[in-house]
Amino acid sequence: MTQIYSRVALIGLGLIASSMAHAMRANGLAGQIVGHAKSAETRATALEIGLCDHVYATAAEAVQGADLVVLAVPVGAMAAIAAEIGPHLAPGCTVTDVGSVKQAVVAAVSPYIPEGVQFIPGHPMAGTEYSGPRSGFATLFQNRWWLLTPAEDADAAQIAKLRNLLEGMGAKVDEMDVAHHDLVVAVVSHVPHAIAYTMVGVADHMRRVSQSEVVKYSAAGFRDFTRIAASDPTMWRDVFLTNKDAVLDILGRFAEELFVLQRAIRMGDGDYLHDYFTRTRAIRRGIIEAGQDTSAPDFGRNPASKPEGKA
Amino acid sequence: MTQIYSRVALIGLGLIASSMAHAMRANGLAGQIVGHAKSAETRATALEIGLCDHVYATAAEAVQGADLVVLAVPVGAMAAIAAEIGPHLAPGCTVTDVGSVKQAVVAAVSPYIPEGVQFIPGHPMAGTEYSGPRSGFATLFQNRWWLLTPAEDADAAQIAKLRNLLEGMGAKVDEMDVAHHDLVVAVVSHVPHAIAYTMVGVADHMRRVSQSEVVKYSAAGFRDFTRIAASDPTMWRDVFLTNKDAVLDILGRFAEELFVLQRAIRMGDGDYLHDYFTRTRAIRRGIIEAGQDTSAPDFGRNPASKPEGKA
Repeated sequence: MTQIYSRVALIGLGLIASSMAHAMRANGLAGQIVGHAKSAETRATALEIGLCDHVYATAAEAVQGADLVVLAVPVGAMAAIAAEIGPHLAPGCTVTDVGSVKQAVVAAVSPYIPEGVQFIPGHPMAGTEYSGPRSGFATLFQNRWWLLTPAEDADAAQIAKLRNLLEGMGAKVDEMDVAHHDLVVAVVSHVPHAIAYTMVGVADHMRRVSQSEVVKYSAAGFRDFTRIAASDPTMWRDVFLTNKDAVLDILGRFAEELFVLQRAIRMGDGDYLHDYFTRTRAIRRGIIEAGQDTSAPDFGRNPASKPEGKA
Repeated sequence: MTQIYSRVALIGLGLIASSMAHAMRANGLAGQIVGHAKSAETRATALEIGLCDHVYATAAEAVQGADLVVLAVPVGAMAAIAAEIGPHLAPGCTVTDVGSVKQAVVAAVSPYIPEGVQFIPGHPMAGTEYSGPRSGFATLFQNRWWLLTPAEDADAAQIAKLRNLLEGMGAKVDEMDVAHHDLVVAVVSHVPHAIAYTMVGVADHMRRVSQSEVVKYSAAGFRDFTRIAASDPTMWRDVFLTNKDAVLDILGRFAEELFVLQRAIRMGDGDYLHDYFTRTRAIRRGIIEAGQDTSAPDFGRNPASKPEGKA
């Protein structure tokens, strides 16, 4: 494949950034890849395993001369990073991010983007339960959605160039309104994660069901709850703090719905339960018919293509 | 492997019974396999695909001469079936069942078990989202737990013989107290399923997030919720009606826990969220260290060993 950017600066070197580095190299999409992480150990690792051609102790140094800057830090750290790099961005540079929440990132980053630089917010819908610079792999984005939420007046040529990069790493790209994005991901990702965390918390508090039993028999539905509940705590704290309105909206609806189901169980209303379970089954069929699933469940991940020995 | 039972009668011919038929045949564990299903179409299918050597229009006929009878009907249908077959069970016969709930099954079935026949309740912790006589496959039970809840005075030799059969089909067998079983499965299976059904129901009601988007981006955590929410409605109705006390207990704890999390999000309590997510991560690590998981999530199923083309 042809090179799309000559110098890509990865700010933050965790799962997403390290996977991007592997994917860009595997496909020849970037001339140079440079990076910044606040931890000296992470920077050393990034050099050691060949993620970056150069690493820098500050984000300000890392972005100099880059034609693409990727903000791959927790959402809560975006504003400080944007303030630091703003004065050092090269004219014509594209800045993107990989945060799971978009309105808060736009609010945090946009004020620091200088004239002549384009900010195109992004969200790769891919991840694993692992984190850090060693957790990345080149195929993480294969067949995953990468959502972009550009402003209405964003430069079409720069959007097209960024799309080329993302598609070159195997992702499917969609554009949507930034507020709508936050609501959609609250439904399909954030609230399911909140629920999984909660269910694991309940099991943790149960004294009558010893932890060893919860672990031993965990294959029966509970195990994948523990898997998503093992995701990076800092990232998820920031997701819930910064997509608060949409998450509270959907959580409120979930609680209402759960109480109706709970009441039907308490009242022994078998007809209601059967009807309800039949309706949810139809949604599942819609997903299969839309070609969005196979018989191999993966809870939003892509383990089949993960190199052996990663777990 | 050597034959363990000479004539096995499968009452009900859905996913579990058809998988047992395949697994028993593949391992030479049963002399004859006979069956009953209330639907003539299911009985014809069972003969056509070779699940059963003979099928019978009534359960009473099917159990005659059997040394093992497997009750593989929804929990709500167990009492009527037990009443029907009771007078026809051969002396020395073992009766087991495959219900996901055990106290209700013991209460429904035990009164109809005659002197000289042993009832050993069982629960294979295995399943897929598919149902019916064509959904079974021989490896469904491979490395899955099969819990037995025999009465304290149950015959040790008959338990050992049944264990041999289950282990011969690849299952790992544990015995536990019947009430404790129902609480454990409420935590690791029933409440996670109730939650998944509820989350899919919420998505169904959302007018602002079109169904096509929920489907399109469903890989991000939501998709496996839809998978478990596609399980057999009748089976799950009966599970919730018959394990009501344990399910309501755990659902109540879940709702409390969820409200505490929701409040922390509303109040912007980042420290609480970070601590909470760090604790749940530790539980996940316990599961990996206990060898109960690999990097391949499967939400309680075993799709890797499912024959191609089953989905």
